[in-house]
Amino acid sequence: MTPHFKADPAFDPGSIVVCDWPLCQVRLQDDTRFPWLILIPRREGLHEIADLDPAGRAALMEEIVRAGDVVRMLAEAAHRPVQKLNVAALGNVTAQLHVHVVGRRHDDGLWPDPVWGRGAALPYGPAALQAAASRIRLSQAG
Amino acid sequence: MTPHFKADPAFDPGSIVVCDWPLCQVRLQDDTRFPWLILIPRREGLHEIADLDPAGRAALMEEIVRAGDVVRMLAEAAHRPVQKLNVAALGNVTAQLHVHVVGRRHDDGLWPDPVWGRGAALPYGPAALQAAASRIRLSQAG
Repeated sequence: MTPHFKADPAFDPGSIVVCDWPLCQVRLQDDTRFPWLILIPRREGLHEIADLDPAGRAALMEEIVRAGDVVRMLAEAAHRPVQKLNVAALGNVTAQLHVHVVGRRHDDGLWPDPVWGRGAALPYGPAALQAAASRIRLSQAG
Repeated sequence: MTPHFKADPAFDPGSIVVCDWPLCQVRLQDDTRFPWLILIPRREGLHEIADLDPAGRAALMEEIVRAGDVVRMLAEAAHRPVQKLNVAALGNVTAQLHVHVVGRRHDDGLWPDPVWGRGAALPYGPAALQAAASRIRLSQAG
């Protein structure tokens, strides 16, 4: 969105870039416990939702809905349909504005607790992670 | 928003109704550890953000921003300014669509963890809770 946008390198160890949507960089969290996207608005210097202008906020909301569709698609491909979406802009660890969209199930091991800061990620492995990212890019929602 | 809207009674033990905004019922969480509002869109049968139409979603986004202003105001009145807002639509415990807007500080006792499902609430006490709700109603943001 701005030529100076750069995702905080703190996102790199836990997630990969899937694609860019009109507002956000879309990342897939490398954690097979949950279908989990991270949306990072591609503008510089954002920390809070209020740092986006109203048009940007409306775009973010629509990309949150689209990310929910992607998460549902990933979950269905894994034969573990989403029972509840968890959507959150926290930023306590990495301050750059970003929104988590996580698919939850009653049997997901952490239910009903939130996912952040609980348990260790179960990585996909490099090939499976890239395959999941490709699946998103090729999907209608992606 | 619809005549049939009713907040789930599960919200009652932990929060009080402050006022109605164009879309949402605004509730104050009864927990002095954090300045914390809950927004419940006043339409029937909502569980996910995607259950709102696009206009409703845009309205929700703007009320999230407004709730952030209220949370900042409450925090400043308590001489503990907000350092980060946490915004989340979870719904794992109470499925009716609602959004938490929580003011966080590095010294708030749970930082950087999320607030949900961690530690016990520290209630305001009835008079202080009503006073905080009044302060919100009388404020510019409220």
